[in-house]
Amino acid sequence: MKKYDVIIIGAGPAGIITGVTAKKRHPEKSMLIFKEEDKGLVPCGIPYVFYKLDSVEKNVMGPKPFVDLGGEVQTDSVVDIDFLNKSLITKSGKEYGFEKLVFATGSKVIVPDFIPGYDLENVFYIKKSYNYIKNMLEKLKTKKNIIVIGGGFIGAEVAEQLALYPEKNVTLIESEQYCFSKAFSKELSQIATEALAGTDVNIHTSVRVEKVIGNNGTVSSVLLNTGKEINCDAVIMAIGYKPNTDLAKKAGLEVNKVGAIIVDNYERTIIKDICAVGDCSQTIGFLTGRTDYVMLASTATAEARVLGHNLFGIKIRKTFTGTLAVFSTEINNVAMAAAGVNDSNAAEANVQIVSGKFSDFDTHPGVFENTSPLTVKLYASPCDGSILGGEVWGGKSVGEIINTIGLAIQKGVTVYELISFQVGTHPLLTSAPTKSILIKAAENIVTQIGK
Amino acid sequence: MKKYDVIIIGAGPAGIITGVTAKKRHPEKSMLIFKEEDKGLVPCGIPYVFYKLDSVEKNVMGPKPFVDLGGEVQTDSVVDIDFLNKSLITKSGKEYGFEKLVFATGSKVIVPDFIPGYDLENVFYIKKSYNYIKNMLEKLKTKKNIIVIGGGFIGAEVAEQLALYPEKNVTLIESEQYCFSKAFSKELSQIATEALAGTDVNIHTSVRVEKVIGNNGTVSSVLLNTGKEINCDAVIMAIGYKPNTDLAKKAGLEVNKVGAIIVDNYERTIIKDICAVGDCSQTIGFLTGRTDYVMLASTATAEARVLGHNLFGIKIRKTFTGTLAVFSTEINNVAMAAAGVNDSNAAEANVQIVSGKFSDFDTHPGVFENTSPLTVKLYASPCDGSILGGEVWGGKSVGEIINTIGLAIQKGVTVYELISFQVGTHPLLTSAPTKSILIKAAENIVTQIGK
Repeated sequence: MKKYDVIIIGAGPAGIITGVTAKKRHPEKSMLIFKEEDKGLVPCGIPYVFYKLDSVEKNVMGPKPFVDLGGEVQTDSVVDIDFLNKSLITKSGKEYGFEKLVFATGSKVIVPDFIPGYDLENVFYIKKSYNYIKNMLEKLKTKKNIIVIGGGFIGAEVAEQLALYPEKNVTLIESEQYCFSKAFSKELSQIATEALAGTDVNIHTSVRVEKVIGNNGTVSSVLLNTGKEINCDAVIMAIGYKPNTDLAKKAGLEVNKVGAIIVDNYERTIIKDICAVGDCSQTIGFLTGRTDYVMLASTATAEARVLGHNLFGIKIRKTFTGTLAVFSTEINNVAMAAAGVNDSNAAEANVQIVSGKFSDFDTHPGVFENTSPLTVKLYASPCDGSILGGEVWGGKSVGEIINTIGLAIQKGVTVYELISFQVGTHPLLTSAPTKSILIKAAENIVTQIGK
Repeated sequence: MKKYDVIIIGAGPAGIITGVTAKKRHPEKSMLIFKEEDKGLVPCGIPYVFYKLDSVEKNVMGPKPFVDLGGEVQTDSVVDIDFLNKSLITKSGKEYGFEKLVFATGSKVIVPDFIPGYDLENVFYIKKSYNYIKNMLEKLKTKKNIIVIGGGFIGAEVAEQLALYPEKNVTLIESEQYCFSKAFSKELSQIATEALAGTDVNIHTSVRVEKVIGNNGTVSSVLLNTGKEINCDAVIMAIGYKPNTDLAKKAGLEVNKVGAIIVDNYERTIIKDICAVGDCSQTIGFLTGRTDYVMLASTATAEARVLGHNLFGIKIRKTFTGTLAVFSTEINNVAMAAAGVNDSNAAEANVQIVSGKFSDFDTHPGVFENTSPLTVKLYASPCDGSILGGEVWGGKSVGEIINTIGLAIQKGVTVYELISFQVGTHPLLTSAPTKSILIKAAENIVTQIGK
């Protein structure tokens, strides 16, 4: 039985970054990552495989940085684990011993077996699998009428990409009033849905799929709860993911109500030397400390860095405790992002907030070509003014502005502090110093609460 | 004699934002801004007047937001002030009384009278004056061979813009080894200089101008200290600015060694009810607390917000004390930015630092069209790991990434904290979550100091 100091199960972002970080810090330790398939995919890049990249190969991500540091990788599946003896058995029948074991098994696509026809031929799922997506891409090339079920990030992005083929007819079905409503406020969900409506995607919101209808085992239409039936050659189910923790449960690890492995702030389970990181591990809300349900590669890699540095003893204190979900996307050339609290999720968790918004342009003066409008909306405590959330939409700089807001939230920065926040501005790169959008949004809140 | 609660001298970014902020907070107070010319310019937009905007009108900035709030504006110059009687006299001979007086007189261009020929016909200066720049733009249209003296931001940006005219022949003279060396590290100065060298600008570095030579009073060539003489039809002097404080000095205010009005953290001079803000007021380094020399609209507006909110009593504590200069520019489609300490200015002030760098792409996977390389270099304390400075270069998102770094510096964030920093990532908008460039640069420092 070959023994390793560290075995990591899973080669997604969480597994690779745990391995890279730990191996850099402890080059003397032997480490092995198990991966399911020879090739892995950049998870958030998958929608772009379907048009912009037009290739699975261009979206490949692998453990090369880990191997370069001296880590080993096996393509095999772990099927059984003995925590007591610190050993595991793989599908190929091999046995390995470990000192530390890390579950980085990720998440798996939700298959809605409550919708009849969910398993017909040409009903696809956005699985994080190179082979599956490669095959799906090939098959979709020949399909004209495509229905995407679910208007979250993945569903909306896939629909947007497929609709860029002039010959395809793409329809999106979303049960809520607006797409993206799990991540964005009502205002931003509406803006995002309108951006998507400006593409060639046909959007149906506030409707549910009753049934997926087939013809000789192959999908032919979708029946909505309104009685409307839409013909199609393919269906893409994009209704979400859940933690992939069957193996962990089988081995005896405790999971929470959403099926995620329970861990402490340093990704350690209650069993000594057994850790879990990324989508398969528990997240708790940064504000409430309640069980949360965030599955983002950015969150997973943050957890992986914390774990990688602290795997052999806590050395770097995790000062940003709790999960701050930071979402971003771009639909029809409108970039949109959100971090933390907004008026929708605040209402759910009974968080008292006041919001402030400011809009201008992402260059100044706002007359350059390629200038985009830009809006920042901040959410803060009505008492101490600490920033609890933010949303940004407009041009591409949105993707980085949300990270300044994210840092502000994680450091407990208040809107009062932002009054004296010193920023850099440039005509070609940012809004004007006189109308620094983030600061003006904060000032708007000061005006409301701080007089 | 008409009396106002607040009189502000100057309608640049500092004056306008002081007025807007104060008037919003105290709508009941009467306020007056004096401006020198009918129309004002966005200061940092001036270089783009010379090509990209091709218009002075498109770069106009005025006190309209202040007027919309009920503020008054006069085009007139203040010539005499009596602090004791709280009154002032203008060029047009009018007298006004005030309760609070704010100097926002900005900066004026440095005229190098030690260089013979500095005042010849067709020797221009980048004055922050609508009328001057309008006239200069017209005159430059007919000039073919143009020499720009000074490779700081303004000189380099003006040279880059003018060189976009195919028929013009633009030469830049810089006395240091690289352009931008006052703001950037040696590494980034070199990158910036190379970016500029990739345009049609002819760059001469490490040389000084001995003399500007004329013919019948009009400039005809420039003589360098190497003996080389370069013929030209026009010269643009861009060697810097100094605080415009003649009026303040005449009125009896104390200025520091660089001629800036001495103020406290809330922009108050030692004379009660007399304030100074923006380029004309003193700045002190955020780290050392020493007298500094920063003239940026972004810094000026941050000061103006602090003053505007606290003009009638300190209400909002300035938690970010000291001036953090945040510079950014874009030359030849390479965006570059810097905040705080770098290895050049650290050496000057004997600040012990360790730096960490990471490069990747600004989208992921890095195969999209319009993808740019992106590098973050961080500077931190070798003891506590607190982030003291940063530089970023690459695509346009540089302009906002530097603000995340700026916030980190101002909040005393450490490289250790950034290990667990949760960011948002998206294929079309940012680097990959596995290679979040800011975090990887921080991790590089952790590896050096924190093992």
